[in-house]
Amino acid sequence: MMQLIKDLWFKRRDIISDGFDESLEYISKIIPLKIHEIPSGTKCWTWTVPEKWSVKEAYINDLDGNRILDLKDHPLHVVSYSLPIDKVVSREELLEHLHTSKERPEAIPFEFKYYEKDWGFCIQDNKLKEFTKDKYKVFIDSKFEKGDLKVGEHTIKGKTDKTIALVSHLCHPAQVNDDLTGVAVSVDIAKAMGKKDNYYTYKFLFVPETIGSLAYLSQNEDVIPKIEYGIFLEMLGNDNIHALQLSRQGDTRLDRIARYLMKRNLKNFKEGPFRTIVGNDEMVFNGPGVDVPMISISRYPYPEYHTSDDNLDIVSEQRLEESKNLILEILNIIDKDFTPKRQFKGPIFLSGYDLWVDWRENLELNRNFEKIMLNLEGDKTVFDIADELNMKFEDVLGFVNKLEKAKLVLNMKNNE
Amino acid sequence: MMQLIKDLWFKRRDIISDGFDESLEYISKIIPLKIHEIPSGTKCWTWTVPEKWSVKEAYINDLDGNRILDLKDHPLHVVSYSLPIDKVVSREELLEHLHTSKERPEAIPFEFKYYEKDWGFCIQDNKLKEFTKDKYKVFIDSKFEKGDLKVGEHTIKGKTDKTIALVSHLCHPAQVNDDLTGVAVSVDIAKAMGKKDNYYTYKFLFVPETIGSLAYLSQNEDVIPKIEYGIFLEMLGNDNIHALQLSRQGDTRLDRIARYLMKRNLKNFKEGPFRTIVGNDEMVFNGPGVDVPMISISRYPYPEYHTSDDNLDIVSEQRLEESKNLILEILNIIDKDFTPKRQFKGPIFLSGYDLWVDWRENLELNRNFEKIMLNLEGDKTVFDIADELNMKFEDVLGFVNKLEKAKLVLNMKNNE
Amino acid sequence: MMQLIKDLWFKRRDIISDGFDESLEYISKIIPLKIHEIPSGTKCWTWTVPEKWSVKEAYINDLDGNRILDLKDHPLHVVSYSLPIDKVVSREELLEHLHTSKERPEAIPFEFKYYEKDWGFCIQDNKLKEFTKDKYKVFIDSKFEKGDLKVGEHTIKGKTDKTIALVSHLCHPAQVNDDLTGVAVSVDIAKAMGKKDNYYTYKFLFVPETIGSLAYLSQNEDVIPKIEYGIFLEMLGNDNIHALQLSRQGDTRLDRIARYLMKRNLKNFKEGPFRTIVGNDEMVFNGPGVDVPMISISRYPYPEYHTSDDNLDIVSEQRLEESKNLILEILNIIDKDFTPKRQFKGPIFLSGYDLWVDWRENLELNRNFEKIMLNLEGDKTVFDIADELNMKFEDVLGFVNKLEKAKLVLNMKNNE
Repeated sequence: MMQLIKDLWFKRRDIISDGFDESLEYISKIIPLKIHEIPSGTKCWTWTVPEKWSVKEAYINDLDGNRILDLKDHPLHVVSYSLPIDKVVSREELLEHLHTSKERPEAIPFEFKYYEKDWGFCIQDNKLKEFTKDKYKVFIDSKFEKGDLKVGEHTIKGKTDKTIALVSHLCHPAQVNDDLTGVAVSVDIAKAMGKKDNYYTYKFLFVPETIGSLAYLSQNEDVIPKIEYGIFLEMLGNDNIHALQLSRQGDTRLDRIARYLMKRNLKNFKEGPFRTIVGNDEMVFNGPGVDVPMISISRYPYPEYHTSDDNLDIVSEQRLEESKNLILEILNIIDKDFTPKRQFKGPIFLSGYDLWVDWRENLELNRNFEKIMLNLEGDKTVFDIADELNMKFEDVLGFVNKLEKAKLVLNMKNNE
Repeated sequence: MMQLIKDLWFKRRDIISDGFDESLEYISKIIPLKIHEIPSGTKCWTWTVPEKWSVKEAYINDLDGNRILDLKDHPLHVVSYSLPIDKVVSREELLEHLHTSKERPEAIPFEFKYYEKDWGFCIQDNKLKEFTKDKYKVFIDSKFEKGDLKVGEHTIKGKTDKTIALVSHLCHPAQVNDDLTGVAVSVDIAKAMGKKDNYYTYKFLFVPETIGSLAYLSQNEDVIPKIEYGIFLEMLGNDNIHALQLSRQGDTRLDRIARYLMKRNLKNFKEGPFRTIVGNDEMVFNGPGVDVPMISISRYPYPEYHTSDDNLDIVSEQRLEESKNLILEILNIIDKDFTPKRQFKGPIFLSGYDLWVDWRENLELNRNFEKIMLNLEGDKTVFDIADELNMKFEDVLGFVNKLEKAKLVLNMKNNE
Repeated sequence: MMQLIKDLWFKRRDIISDGFDESLEYISKIIPLKIHEIPSGTKCWTWTVPEKWSVKEAYINDLDGNRILDLKDHPLHVVSYSLPIDKVVSREELLEHLHTSKERPEAIPFEFKYYEKDWGFCIQDNKLKEFTKDKYKVFIDSKFEKGDLKVGEHTIKGKTDKTIALVSHLCHPAQVNDDLTGVAVSVDIAKAMGKKDNYYTYKFLFVPETIGSLAYLSQNEDVIPKIEYGIFLEMLGNDNIHALQLSRQGDTRLDRIARYLMKRNLKNFKEGPFRTIVGNDEMVFNGPGVDVPMISISRYPYPEYHTSDDNLDIVSEQRLEESKNLILEILNIIDKDFTPKRQFKGPIFLSGYDLWVDWRENLELNRNFEKIMLNLEGDKTVFDIADELNMKFEDVLGFVNKLEKAKLVLNMKNNE
């Protein structure tokens, strides 16, 4: 995963830009992508696809020609989607267009003005004191033009076309956690899931943040009813604990599986309802009239967020692996889970079906197998039972599979 | 409001009586009334309309002809609906028919025997010691005759014939809070609502307590299904805090609006479920098979209740105004409230519709407008949203009205 | 009840055995029984009826011919359903087949191997030290043969064929509480209920534990939908407090009536959900696909359980009486209970129907009769109302009966 991040992180990946397109191209060489192209000006529900933006050169000089700031030094030095400008301005006017981070005075902040139409630069806060002259020359050679918003889609067909969507965003120039880490983990999960025989169809979407999800969903409304659940992945490489933001519904099977696994597998994590931890593409999927329950898994917050300090130094392969494995386990449970339906009456004659579980073999299962048998009325899935009895999913699944083999339960997923 | 109270308070306003009829006549000169006349003996569900009652003279003499008590001194000196009597009785027998208030020994209590058929007098408790003789002459020249129970009804037609009933009772001779204050506030509210363009139809009913509501509803059963909510008003002039008694259902929109406004507008108030604060006409409207959710708003309890001390001295115009304004606000919300239904998909592009709310303009709305947009699925009214988000009703209404103008929501009240 | 217990307790009442059959025969002389005979080998859902078992002689000798243990001394000395054996075994092998109770070293434990196919003896733990020789002769002359599992059924027809089942088990040789006490109490209840005019049909079942209920229900599946509730009775003679184990549903009318009466009538009792106190025939009735809500009433736990100390010494007629009366009261309420449906509108004119209750006569009823009248919408039974208002069932019943006589409510049981 670190290779992908290293190759792409410093690119000028603005929401509609050559850098974004090149990055999508790069990913399509690892996993095949269908590239959706939605032209500037396309109406996406209440939104409109903006123009493509590029910048060739940008700098601030004093009137003696000394270069005070140069885009060449760092892609974040210019505000994303800044208007072009070529003008001598007063110190006061310049300062109104200089963005800094008071919290991290040595870092360049990430600023964007997708819809506000303004120009601006970003610099380290501790460099502000160098602006002592009365006038400065500001120059931004940026261009707005018709272009195509691009969304990369990788699909792994399952037995059903009920779909689980995994979404990450590929934009944000020169930043790593937000959200190249989500992209990298997503790509690795796609590779792993592609090798399996899945029940669900899995769709991996690589989008420019928010507008990408809006463009994709609004132009593909027929897909929405098929998406049963979604997971938004971002900011997974830093050293904070995992944060689970629940879906808008808050208690879907996916929400409960994610919480169940985080409790069992992680030393520590935090959890919050919809809109209390992050606000990204999951707002679109969970949005009114879309109503796809989408959880968000991140390691938000972290102090380097939206600055030039969100770079390779704060990301580790090991943490990406931990996140990846967690999500693979979530998918494992949701994919294998099914509703068993009782085909017997009365308590089962255990010894007659070799169903007795010795407490020395599996104490948890020994204590609970009677309770499992009382929960096979067709209104609970295997996971529901495991969650309710606070048991290992695989233990309940194994026991229920034995019952299925003995024709004591019917697998409602296979008979749907 | 004080003028009406001063003009009517000392009248002999027994439940079916000339005094009651004159008072109704007085009100009909302020707001037009339809007078319902229900004759004595009419069956009203399980009840029967009693006879009209009047009393010309009533006194107690000692056998030397000294007048110990005289009805002329105060209308409360005789028990309402007392049987006539003209007899010399022993001191013991007399005492059994003398009613006093131990708690307020200097006040004459209000007693009534509508259905018990008995005779009696009411006097100050501290005068009991004056009854030192062995025998007394008791005289009550009262009359029972066929008459008409009268209910005054003032109707303000709205866009719909869904109705809100405001009920107060005009009986109780020589008392003010109970319930001339409810009548006076009701009349003023009727005047105010008559000047507005209302959605609901408003019905103001002036009744003799309990039997009046029973008579009106049982003789007009077709009206019952139209009455969506009711408010019973009484005892509003004394200096106690407001008391909100919830409807039998306890959680209707009206209950919640009344609680919401009392919390926001009053320094202090108390609240209790049905039958824990008062028991009056709201028992009939909330009664089995009638099932109109009727709240009661009063300033109960107060120490002068049901005595001659419930007079002009303990009532203030300012407190009546406060009650009136509270109820007008309740009616304002319930009348303007409607169910907005989302017509958009996904998060709204706020800047595109001029919907962005700056936190410097309205912090509460800025923090909540996203939540408002997540609550437009057609299962909540504007008030429900305001209540849930603990916001000003007018702020939510204003924001939803903007959405309506932009055709992003449908007003379900106007499209019903 | 003690007579029945004295006559039967020491019998060899194994699950399918002559002792069991004789005991059933004994009961059928007190109350008529229909005897169901289900042959060995019959498939009962997932179970199979085992063979009949008998034992003529069983002993352990040392090789000098000294008798160390003899079945003649106590029926519990041999494991129920032990295989036959006639062999000289080493001390080590013998000890593996000797069962004792560490908790009660002077008592012989009760052991059974219905499905495990093994041989064994039971002795007092403090006699283990007498086994000092190297080899012993073990002899068990037991026989397995085709037979009939027997279930005794006593039915008292009611107005409806909706049925309440009272179940106790007649097996467990030489033990008293478990469960001859349940049987004795059951027989006495049957005698009492037989003298009454009942609404429900009552079925008393005397079974061998678990397999008896399974055999009866699986061979009489048409009876199951008629059984509305069940009560399992056992271990009622010892001096522990009553224990109420709720049905699987946990909140049926029967559960609530039992709890209500235990709270009102007993100084002390304990209560637990299904499967937290006992596990007997109520597991079958409450079992998946059977779903008869069956509570269990016992005095479990008690220290003599499943040993030779569970004998006549620890049982008292008085405690059996107390249990019997409690259960008769439960049946009294459930049988008399019905759903009253309001036929009036508005508050009732109490004096007109002689419904006024003076607080001096019945304070509880005086305080609650208005609430009773608000609960007659046809969604609550008389017991529901009594339970909700925390009132005596008979008081509520009496008041509702008055309303019924005045045609103010309809009895929904009689009009069903």
